[in-house]
Amino acid sequence: MSDVSTDNRGKATMEKITSLAKRRGFVFQSSEIYGGQSGAWDYGPLGIELKNRIARNWWREMTQLHDDIVGLDAAILMHPRVWEASGHVENFTDPLVDCKKCKARFRADQIPQENLSSKKCPDCGGELTDTRKFNLMFKTHIGPVEKNDDSNAVYLRPETAQGIYVNYKNIIQSSRMKIPFGIAQIGKAFRNEIVTKNFIFRTCEFEQMEMQYFVKPGTDVEWFNKWKERRWAYYEKLGVKMDSLRWHQHGSDELAHYAKDAYDIEYLFPMGWKELEGVHNRSNYDLSRHAQFSGKDLQYIDQENNNERYIPFIIETSAGLTRTLLMLICDAYDEEKVADKGSGGTEASGDDWRTVLRFHPAIAPVTVAVLPLMKKDGLAEMALDIRQELKEDYTTDYDQAGAIGRRYRRQDEAGTPFCVTVDYESKENGTVTLRFRDSMEQVRVHKNELASRLREEIKAYKRTK
Amino acid sequence: MSDVSTDNRGKATMEKITSLAKRRGFVFQSSEIYGGQSGAWDYGPLGIELKNRIARNWWREMTQLHDDIVGLDAAILMHPRVWEASGHVENFTDPLVDCKKCKARFRADQIPQENLSSKKCPDCGGELTDTRKFNLMFKTHIGPVEKNDDSNAVYLRPETAQGIYVNYKNIIQSSRMKIPFGIAQIGKAFRNEIVTKNFIFRTCEFEQMEMQYFVKPGTDVEWFNKWKERRWAYYEKLGVKMDSLRWHQHGSDELAHYAKDAYDIEYLFPMGWKELEGVHNRSNYDLSRHAQFSGKDLQYIDQENNNERYIPFIIETSAGLTRTLLMLICDAYDEEKVADKGSGGTEASGDDWRTVLRFHPAIAPVTVAVLPLMKKDGLAEMALDIRQELKEDYTTDYDQAGAIGRRYRRQDEAGTPFCVTVDYESKENGTVTLRFRDSMEQVRVHKNELASRLREEIKAYKRTK
Repeated sequence: MSDVSTDNRGKATMEKITSLAKRRGFVFQSSEIYGGQSGAWDYGPLGIELKNRIARNWWREMTQLHDDIVGLDAAILMHPRVWEASGHVENFTDPLVDCKKCKARFRADQIPQENLSSKKCPDCGGELTDTRKFNLMFKTHIGPVEKNDDSNAVYLRPETAQGIYVNYKNIIQSSRMKIPFGIAQIGKAFRNEIVTKNFIFRTCEFEQMEMQYFVKPGTDVEWFNKWKERRWAYYEKLGVKMDSLRWHQHGSDELAHYAKDAYDIEYLFPMGWKELEGVHNRSNYDLSRHAQFSGKDLQYIDQENNNERYIPFIIETSAGLTRTLLMLICDAYDEEKVADKGSGGTEASGDDWRTVLRFHPAIAPVTVAVLPLMKKDGLAEMALDIRQELKEDYTTDYDQAGAIGRRYRRQDEAGTPFCVTVDYESKENGTVTLRFRDSMEQVRVHKNELASRLREEIKAYKRTK
Repeated sequence: MSDVSTDNRGKATMEKITSLAKRRGFVFQSSEIYGGQSGAWDYGPLGIELKNRIARNWWREMTQLHDDIVGLDAAILMHPRVWEASGHVENFTDPLVDCKKCKARFRADQIPQENLSSKKCPDCGGELTDTRKFNLMFKTHIGPVEKNDDSNAVYLRPETAQGIYVNYKNIIQSSRMKIPFGIAQIGKAFRNEIVTKNFIFRTCEFEQMEMQYFVKPGTDVEWFNKWKERRWAYYEKLGVKMDSLRWHQHGSDELAHYAKDAYDIEYLFPMGWKELEGVHNRSNYDLSRHAQFSGKDLQYIDQENNNERYIPFIIETSAGLTRTLLMLICDAYDEEKVADKGSGGTEASGDDWRTVLRFHPAIAPVTVAVLPLMKKDGLAEMALDIRQELKEDYTTDYDQAGAIGRRYRRQDEAGTPFCVTVDYESKENGTVTLRFRDSMEQVRVHKNELASRLREEIKAYKRTK
């Protein structure tokens, strides 16, 4: 079932995860039949279910459970002045050099200084071009003509945050929000990355889950710390291995020009510690710039405090949705040596290792699979009836093909937390076996109690392995 | 509260709907503080909640409840050959003419033939240019250099369907689907429309909900009819006024080159009957073209039928998500003359008309609002406690400002189906009033029974007005 080689048994590697993701329909290369589109990926049946659940979970946490946060969904195509105000037109660049001889392209900050000064290619010794600034925003043209002066150029947004800033007054007016309050958004962003790598970790097209929290200047440090705590607790609730997470504070050399303080939550991916989410104190930079470039007054008027006016500070929590998806697959990935229980048990699959994705049941792509022990004797019909009931509340799968042990392994590999097996006893007394992915333990439950039992199990779930 | 003029009282107009959408935070103009970005719109707090619910509802209906349909989420940036195979590079064009004098631009098929032949502008009589074909796909460049030969050009997808077709083999392999089966997808698409109009009805950036159903040739007519029935029933379930929906069959002059048969579901918007969803029999055109352009064998192998091979026919159901949102607002919109119940009732708001959005409770942006009759005497605290309980299961609002009648009107205008009011009796015996948006009737319910009562009410909801 799993394609692991013996020397790295039990270990998660990017190679194994990429292979599993493709094989089981989590992630496909975009436009694969045409040789692939670099930097873009497609999410298959299991991938989109996982992505949807991560997004819903974050959205519920941020908006439904927080009285002081509302949602927004701004367009990808924004007015080009937005990116002048934000600083992206000027500063969102990579320094690039090319080798005139071998045509290799390098980021100037990633090759040795001596190559830059001697202007010699680190690969072939050929002559390097001067360093050019290359803007990472994708540009397109709106309206029927590509004018030479770029007067109708627009950009694909390189981040979702600006859509929140330009709507902050609209939201105060329409939703009557009072500071402190937040605006949450999930959406796509695009960056013309020269080097895309590590599977879906760094891509040209990606999805962000951002919350921008507007506070009174002077209260920003307190709110910054509060949001750091809340975002850390969020991953705990998701069941992530907490010793694979750490804080990284931006040093003065890393801090963005707008940031007063910035911490990243990093995760220990198979390729090392990498940024998962940023919690940043963006000061009043963003709203001040938009006030300046738009000519609009973006001060907050505190009606409960003598109409005091100020430009709010912004605390940002910015997580990658597609990156979180990769993290959760890495975090859930396990290979486990299992005893073959032989003919007496039901776990005989011919393998002595199993690959299992230990997703939290609340985010697993399929919640419950229904399996008839045999196709015949009415077991398949009974299993299909049970699926029919369960699918009102849960995402279900059904599998009647092959030995039951191999079918459990297939569900383990998809991360399905619960399997329901219909056997001959089911026909007699209406009970089925409920099998737990993590422990492989089985209990008998009456079929009429399955839906509520699953609800309890999901609520009570604690990861033990 | 409502800004209607007396002469069109009771009628839904696009003007009123646009105004309500902005005022209450459903839809804002994109980048409004910069004068707006044409053809792009932002969804505010109520808008994104409504959009999310429409999307979830469709997704649940299509994937969770259909054993033979799985989901997909393909990238917006696809390999450029995709659009050659699909025919978009060649055919996805509008014919345009410009007036050399007044600079007005026209679609050649939308001005009188006599102006085209005389080459005289219908506006000013100036000279018209020749008709040019203008491709509606947005083009951008991937990688660091905009090469002159467009060798690194990519397009923003103008439709989501192609992402499904190019992944059809991947999905068969990873999810072991057998024909007949479907692939569902929700996602953004982009068209460089010359004329964007009717608010969010026709825009450059929009969202589609598409399902492509793969069938054996010869069974396509039967499946086409089945999907027509199912999609019609879907709108019935959503509580849409069914006499505002109709079928429109494409005549031979309207049929796309790939289509064998095509019907649109049209809705009677305030600006007239307009397409909401298409149910199309696309024949085997798409997969044949991709097989030809990619050089890959895209035949289905029927293992249960002597390994019979064929290119499947495709039945498509393609709905606009953002268009459905507009439809549901129009459909829900109502203005109603209400009797002022005076001091005895609680509906006194000073208005004798109310504007109400009669959304189905399952898709309403806010499910329940909790309102303390007064702020004082512990009523606010009790109301906040009740909200705290309800928000585990529902999207909630809380409002303590102003007269209760005016607060009900605010919730009516947001389409909130249920209001819970905490009054002095609540303090005595734990009961609250549950007020129904449509009938404005109120019943007393114990606060501990609210969550389950709401669940029942949502399930049992039938639109009566």
